[in-house]
Amino acid sequence: MDERPIGVFDSGVGGLTVVKELRSLIPAEDIVYFGDTARVPYGNKSIPVIRRFSLEIARFLESMRVKMLVIACNTATALALDYLKRQTDLPIVGVIEPGVRAALNAIKDGRIGVIGTSATIRSEAYQSRLHRFRPRDVILARPCPLLVPLVEENLLDAPITKLALDMYLSEWRESGIDALILACTHYPLLKPLIEEYFQGRVRLIDSAQETAREVAELLQARRLQAPPDRMGSEEFYVSDSPESFTTIGSAFLGRPLQRVFLEPVWKRDIGPVSAVD
Amino acid sequence: MDERPIGVFDSGVGGLTVVKELRSLIPAEDIVYFGDTARVPYGNKSIPVIRRFSLEIARFLESMRVKMLVIACNTATALALDYLKRQTDLPIVGVIEPGVRAALNAIKDGRIGVIGTSATIRSEAYQSRLHRFRPRDVILARPCPLLVPLVEENLLDAPITKLALDMYLSEWRESGIDALILACTHYPLLKPLIEEYFQGRVRLIDSAQETAREVAELLQARRLQAPPDRMGSEEFYVSDSPESFTTIGSAFLGRPLQRVFLEPVWKRDIGPVSAVD
Repeated sequence: MDERPIGVFDSGVGGLTVVKELRSLIPAEDIVYFGDTARVPYGNKSIPVIRRFSLEIARFLESMRVKMLVIACNTATALALDYLKRQTDLPIVGVIEPGVRAALNAIKDGRIGVIGTSATIRSEAYQSRLHRFRPRDVILARPCPLLVPLVEENLLDAPITKLALDMYLSEWRESGIDALILACTHYPLLKPLIEEYFQGRVRLIDSAQETAREVAELLQARRLQAPPDRMGSEEFYVSDSPESFTTIGSAFLGRPLQRVFLEPVWKRDIGPVSAVD
Repeated sequence: MDERPIGVFDSGVGGLTVVKELRSLIPAEDIVYFGDTARVPYGNKSIPVIRRFSLEIARFLESMRVKMLVIACNTATALALDYLKRQTDLPIVGVIEPGVRAALNAIKDGRIGVIGTSATIRSEAYQSRLHRFRPRDVILARPCPLLVPLVEENLLDAPITKLALDMYLSEWRESGIDALILACTHYPLLKPLIEEYFQGRVRLIDSAQETAREVAELLQARRLQAPPDRMGSEEFYVSDSPESFTTIGSAFLGRPLQRVFLEPVWKRDIGPVSAVD
């Protein structure tokens, strides 16, 4: 038994889709969340910058005495997971392996599409894993950089968002795909619109549920679970504007947020980052 | 005579629209530009965060021995110009006073619209100045948060950008406005599309030209001009991805960029920032 909290981070609010699933699957666990709202978005940024920002956040979460880290951001998982593993002794779970597993479980064979930020798609983190496990499947990938700002503007059902989907996905609707991996934690909020766009003819895969399952398994395997007879607490830290995080975040979490605090992580001493620079 | 460079900064590439006008009006001047591409965009961020980032950049430009600062970003001008004036002895020019003056010069009276980022519009920096000088004019203001990502995606003539304009501006097209202030240095790239949208029935005001004029006047008044018989040099520093800045930046500058360097300003000692935090 281990009552220390789970540390979860994202570039902003998107990671709350993972928090929602963690809360539902392992309600006894305390959660400390960090959203880097002063430096959001990560999706167009470079590997050294995303690694540095991720390390600053990891150091902050370590200072909050977390028992493990969850990178609830596809871009940071794609570009910084292996790097962070070399910088900390804490167990770390990202969202990409679970997302790939969810896709492999969902369909036996066929055509799999992957959509995400430019940095995630460019990293080929999804494509290379899918190819490895399913060398005969057709893997298609496409960056959709406007979807994050559209979701952040809460335009979840607006004509402009439909037009953006059409701009990015019309080719796949024509040619047909069997599964579509939502490789960005913002995208689950667009599920109804994407389902409507494909007229229900595609399986939508997001990694939030499968990530929560992997976290639960890891805690069990390492005997790090919280005692089951308690209700876990939540604290949310952001690098900018707790007010706007609280407002937008509730759409992601599906309920009101409390205990949101300001934490400028860049003020912390994160030690040497020579491998980054 | 003073051969030191002019320091210009922006959250990203947008400020290059000001560099273009500076180059055209005062070609003898050297320019050192900083684009904060690791932390772009600024438009949804808070006052303390934008002040801190602006101060880090000002300290970097001071270290490059510039003779003055140009804040080529509406959001940073709105939220950090007065703050920076208290932190440095260098003369500083922002883009808002010039933008307001350009609007007042362009029309005698009527209905003036202002579009910009959420932070710029929320600051009321334009609205309050326009009201002061033109208490009888009708001043309308509207944040257009999707226009920056659309411009950064180079979708300058795409159907989705037309739809965004319609979402933000249809009311003003119906009711009619006489001038529209483009209160964001990204927006001049949308001029053709906006003119088409209003069918030429509105004066579009951007502050780049007027800002360059104010810089030239200030240099002359303080005897800080470079000798006229020389060709000014340019250096561009960015906090992330010189490659992508070089590519996107040429659309803003209207010609290829050279001498683009990486400079992570957050590694510098910026001294006390107690007034910020």
